[in-house]
Amino acid sequence: MRQAGRYLPEYRRIRGGDDILETCLRTDVVVELSLQPCRRMDVDAAIVFSDIMVPLAAVGVPVRIEPGRGPLVDEPVRSSDDVSRLRPLEPDVDVPHVLEAIRLLRKELDVPLLGFAGAPFTLASYLVEGGPSRTHERTKALMYAEPSTWDALMSALVAIVLPHLRAQAEAGAQALQVFDSWVGVVEPNAYERSVLPHMERLFAGLRDLGVPVIHFGVGTGELLPLMRRAGGDVIGVDWRTPLDVAWQRIGPGAAVQGNLDPVVLSAPFEVVAAEAERVLSLAAMRDGHVFNLGHGVPPGTEPDTLRRLVELVHERTQRPGNRSA
Amino acid sequence: MRQAGRYLPEYRRIRGGDDILETCLRTDVVVELSLQPCRRMDVDAAIVFSDIMVPLAAVGVPVRIEPGRGPLVDEPVRSSDDVSRLRPLEPDVDVPHVLEAIRLLRKELDVPLLGFAGAPFTLASYLVEGGPSRTHERTKALMYAEPSTWDALMSALVAIVLPHLRAQAEAGAQALQVFDSWVGVVEPNAYERSVLPHMERLFAGLRDLGVPVIHFGVGTGELLPLMRRAGGDVIGVDWRTPLDVAWQRIGPGAAVQGNLDPVVLSAPFEVVAAEAERVLSLAAMRDGHVFNLGHGVPPGTEPDTLRRLVELVHERTQRPGNRSA
Repeated sequence: MRQAGRYLPEYRRIRGGDDILETCLRTDVVVELSLQPCRRMDVDAAIVFSDIMVPLAAVGVPVRIEPGRGPLVDEPVRSSDDVSRLRPLEPDVDVPHVLEAIRLLRKELDVPLLGFAGAPFTLASYLVEGGPSRTHERTKALMYAEPSTWDALMSALVAIVLPHLRAQAEAGAQALQVFDSWVGVVEPNAYERSVLPHMERLFAGLRDLGVPVIHFGVGTGELLPLMRRAGGDVIGVDWRTPLDVAWQRIGPGAAVQGNLDPVVLSAPFEVVAAEAERVLSLAAMRDGHVFNLGHGVPPGTEPDTLRRLVELVHERTQRPGNRSA
Repeated sequence: MRQAGRYLPEYRRIRGGDDILETCLRTDVVVELSLQPCRRMDVDAAIVFSDIMVPLAAVGVPVRIEPGRGPLVDEPVRSSDDVSRLRPLEPDVDVPHVLEAIRLLRKELDVPLLGFAGAPFTLASYLVEGGPSRTHERTKALMYAEPSTWDALMSALVAIVLPHLRAQAEAGAQALQVFDSWVGVVEPNAYERSVLPHMERLFAGLRDLGVPVIHFGVGTGELLPLMRRAGGDVIGVDWRTPLDVAWQRIGPGAAVQGNLDPVVLSAPFEVVAAEAERVLSLAAMRDGHVFNLGHGVPPGTEPDTLRRLVELVHERTQRPGNRSA
């Protein structure tokens, strides 16, 4: 919900038809796009404008993002030879523009700034499938059939994602979000065996930074206890799992983020308000809730709907505990 | 798992490049394709070869199925005018070939025969989106923004699906499966308000037939109690939800079907066996389990892997209660 994007006319005006990965290299544009949502609405935080494929492109993976389709990797990663070509990320050399944008944004913003990265499983899916997938079949097939290649791939991705996240915090990001958007397709036992150990290393590697970390996925109802075990001060929950149920599964000690279905935003505002109230009434049961959408803002959303939604959430939540992690 | 399909060379030989909806009209071919999996392996039931779009095509919806893409509806259904053009199904007039195939199959088979249909939400998604979708955004947007158009659409679909299922049972199908494959994208409160009432009417309309009904969906972990309330003697569970958890949510009085992740089938057989054993050991906790995949057979699957899997399940499950609903 704090993201810049196609739902903003001022975003479309600046981006035009430019390649998104090219856009992410232009520090001035990144700063402007990151600020846009904050000018429109009274959000409690900003997130640096980027793409989860940025660090992969930065270490030389031939990735391009096709409008309307998503990230495409022309030479998919499916063998241990392919994996061995993935090198660790050196933030100062590979993503200086992201770090510079964060430094500049900190000077502009009076709300906290979030950095982010895609999680290893979700990045692995794009690398193995060669593009977006509904079922992530090839990815999971590699995980089941070739566990040592899989573990090498996940380790290589931790060596890209972890330095990227650390560098963002060191440049000034006051919280970090780890997007494991597609991990909800994994069977819980397989998650525990093939994903959890890598996620534990990732979160352990962030601990000394002292910044809150949000751990997000879609369709992860059954994975919530394992995601909590992996790490994260805040666990993202999509609309499929009611917040009270999510809290039960996550247990004490972590906050939840979510979980309005973004599709609701296209309905008349009284419907948006009613659904937001439902989320807030469940959230009121316990401290530690970050109001958010269960996933990204749909491109057709009216910016004013979001502005009114932020206003409504602020009206209803007086306690600061409900407003940030 | 009992389905005919692209993983069988004898299926590809017969289907060739023919349109699948055309194929479904040819009774002799439907009978042959339905029998193919039973010749290859010792499955406990057969399912009539068809497609969930067959009854929609039969009432005049301009639907075509594009290989590799799925069902496409050139004039999507998005207004109450569009909905008013959907007429109820008259089975003897509209789908005589399906009913004739069922009658012929009953003479050939020595295992029970299943009939099936897509559930209203899943069919609505194809009609509203105009094709397959990852997010089903337009469908849910209609549900939230125009509840009366939505209810009219769901009612029109019940008037197609219910007679179709009844006629299949009356023609000889010994069990029925209702595929609500995509309903897992719906938030539980929205399911209760906008899907459940229609599903309750559908299942109530099947009750006097006296045949067991399987209620299936993907990613429905949080919806299981509501799906159980809607109806069905067996609730299908995909691999995301462990069977013991599914049983807790479903409560007593219904069986479960599932839930091996189909992707496992591409791994070496020892992996397939280990994952099947895991499912069976959870299933052994209670009576009333139908072993099955959590979703369809991936096209690249080796038929022999499935044959060996059926053998393994039969070896491990001596009690008939574990083998059929």
